[in-house]
Amino acid sequence: MAEDRQDDPFEWIDAQRERRARAGLVRRLNPRPADSPLLDLASNDYLGLARHPEVTAAAAEAARRWGAGSTGSRLVTGTTELHAALEEELAEFCGFEAALVFSSGYAANLAAVSALSDRDALVVSDAGNHASLIDGCRLSRAEVEVVPHADPAAVRKVLDAEGHEAGGGRGRRALVVTDSVFSVDGDAAPLPALAAACRSHSAALVVDDAHGLGVLGEGGRGAVHAAGLAGAPQVVVTATLSKSLGSQGGAVLGPARVIEHLVNAARTFIFDTGLNPAAAGAALASLRLLAREPQRAARARTVATALHGRLTAAGLSAVRPDAAVVSVRAPSPEQAVQWAADCRAAGLLVGCFRPPSVPDGISRLRLTARADLTDEQIEQAVGVILETAPTA
Amino acid sequence: MAEDRQDDPFEWIDAQRERRARAGLVRRLNPRPADSPLLDLASNDYLGLARHPEVTAAAAEAARRWGAGSTGSRLVTGTTELHAALEEELAEFCGFEAALVFSSGYAANLAAVSALSDRDALVVSDAGNHASLIDGCRLSRAEVEVVPHADPAAVRKVLDAEGHEAGGGRGRRALVVTDSVFSVDGDAAPLPALAAACRSHSAALVVDDAHGLGVLGEGGRGAVHAAGLAGAPQVVVTATLSKSLGSQGGAVLGPARVIEHLVNAARTFIFDTGLNPAAAGAALASLRLLAREPQRAARARTVATALHGRLTAAGLSAVRPDAAVVSVRAPSPEQAVQWAADCRAAGLLVGCFRPPSVPDGISRLRLTARADLTDEQIEQAVGVILETAPTA
Ligand SMILES: Cc1ncc(COP(=O)(O)O)c(C=O)c1O
Ligand SMILES: Cc1ncc(COP(=O)(O)O)c(C=O)c1O
Repeated sequence: MAEDRQDDPFEWIDAQRERRARAGLVRRLNPRPADSPLLDLASNDYLGLARHPEVTAAAAEAARRWGAGSTGSRLVTGTTELHAALEEELAEFCGFEAALVFSSGYAANLAAVSALSDRDALVVSDAGNHASLIDGCRLSRAEVEVVPHADPAAVRKVLDAEGHEAGGGRGRRALVVTDSVFSVDGDAAPLPALAAACRSHSAALVVDDAHGLGVLGEGGRGAVHAAGLAGAPQVVVTATLSKSLGSQGGAVLGPARVIEHLVNAARTFIFDTGLNPAAAGAALASLRLLAREPQRAARARTVATALHGRLTAAGLSAVRPDAAVVSVRAPSPEQAVQWAADCRAAGLLVGCFRPPSVPDGISRLRLTARADLTDEQIEQAVGVILETAPTA
Repeated sequence: MAEDRQDDPFEWIDAQRERRARAGLVRRLNPRPADSPLLDLASNDYLGLARHPEVTAAAAEAARRWGAGSTGSRLVTGTTELHAALEEELAEFCGFEAALVFSSGYAANLAAVSALSDRDALVVSDAGNHASLIDGCRLSRAEVEVVPHADPAAVRKVLDAEGHEAGGGRGRRALVVTDSVFSVDGDAAPLPALAAACRSHSAALVVDDAHGLGVLGEGGRGAVHAAGLAGAPQVVVTATLSKSLGSQGGAVLGPARVIEHLVNAARTFIFDTGLNPAAAGAALASLRLLAREPQRAARARTVATALHGRLTAAGLSAVRPDAAVVSVRAPSPEQAVQWAADCRAAGLLVGCFRPPSVPDGISRLRLTARADLTDEQIEQAVGVILETAPTA
């Protein structure tokens, strides 16, 4: 037996598993039924569109018309006219010259960061950035400077040190990378200050608007649009089709030459199968629905503000939401897990973020404010969260 | 104007674009209509299932029943009972203890390589491996030894140098990584020899069976099953749902503890939205269809052998296909592009691989042998390819 175990290439997995178990950090999958009776404040379906009949009908119709898969790389057989329409309407809606659709937001972020920088570039990355942006930084092989969270002065300092003064052209190529709305705490990035720092240093700005699209800006046009930066020549936006648009997929938006460059250079575009037609069709239907019903975006923000107001009034510690994510602090990972479990037992589904998914080691309940929650449902959710709150 | 251009953070893109144009390597997207009259030998829809009515109906039904998107990370709301069923049936079909579904094959490969190795590990990677495996190696931060293509002796030598003799336990953790069928030339990896090398050195073997699943092995159970390695304790397989299964998504298959580990440690699993229900439903329907009609796999191989036989008999240089990819050499990138364009003009859609998508700089036409091609269609395709072949 001892001999056997020495030959076992995965023995280390058991050790890691035991460590995880001792720390109360084991994750398990919880398959959900189609008709769950739970009130959902955990999904990222901010506008309640994932199950909207118009959206699911568009998914179904696209699968039937275009096939279940796109059948190849976007460069070979994986680009249908449906993909082209989605790209065109998404770019127009968000106010950019062009857009490129990927199989996921994760892939879009890997592409944007890694194809817009290289070994000789400097990437300045917010400490709270999403895992996919961080992985993009790693793949880029650029020098990466991680700056404190939401700190444009720190960004400026790094760029200053590079000698990236406007028109100077002395420094390396530089890219500043940030989430627009940070997924853990739901706080917004200081986009105008970051854009100004980039402008005065000839740096590009990449903004991941995963949690801003559909929620922020005029009619849900996103955080970058809200900041008056849509279509700016130095700004590139990434987005996901899997949150407010209720589907799957990702996109990069920006100047046409940047998009053309990605078609030629982004590995997660070139070497990946194109987004499946059902997902593309659903995202396009959601986009059109949102254009027709712009009040959905405002309603998501109203719900978030209401949730936050009620919970903090009752004494809980929650970050003031800049978009549709309301993050409530928990005393410990174990208590966060227990709290989420107690909510679930009381009919409410909430997210539970704990190490290593949180940058600062602080565990949280993560609530998402869906635009389609009724005032009664908000009351119900608040009631359950307060009743089950750990006594600190 | 000169001032303006100095402030332009994307000026370098124009220079790269000009270089690409001079080399004849500019890529453009060609949106296809739903009812293209072209004969398709370019897609990876090896079994012709992407548009099979049973498969598209399953996609449509899944979107309607489960929603257009999975609405969150697999760890939060993104795991439905449909995902669980797909994982269970896929694992059983391929002969593994467990499976985990990702949003793409690309994401599955990033996960398998990066979560099964780390800074202190050694990864031995075939020089012909797919971009997603290479990116997985980069993300892992492991020491990566790239070995010559399909060369188990070279793999053994690297492992020997590490002192990974069985039971010795002296070296670092080691992972050998390979495609099962290489996507450019369609040749197969020497899996039994690689597995033997891994066994005698306590190394793990990760096999990307993207182009083997559905084509090789008993009833399309894949290259690893064909090599008698399904369920082997040191073997992990990655697969894609986007080729033979005609959908989108990826999977990792292996021992239950490896899958559990990925649930807890793989960033492209934890921080990515779950696969959309339509894609999961379509892949499951394809899998069941293949289980019921195992002859589809054999037919794809027969078509590939026929294509290769006819083309080489006529004097073209093509690699003998080990699966359903037939790779035909072209004299230059420009001639490859022209050849593909001439095929297209004559009603035939073929793939065209050229730098930087080919490891050796040699451009090729890439033909895929779909199981649903009729003998007449094979004749038609061969006729067009020969008529349009560049005169060397
Ligand atoms: C900020 C942020 N960016 C990117 C992603 C990845 O997008 P997707 O899930 O569509 O791959 C997510 C979450 O999944 C996210 O929260
Ligand atoms: C060998 C290989 N592995 C992985 C992938 C990626 O799979 P997917 O397209 O499902 O992301 C591909 C092609 O796309 C491939 O050819």
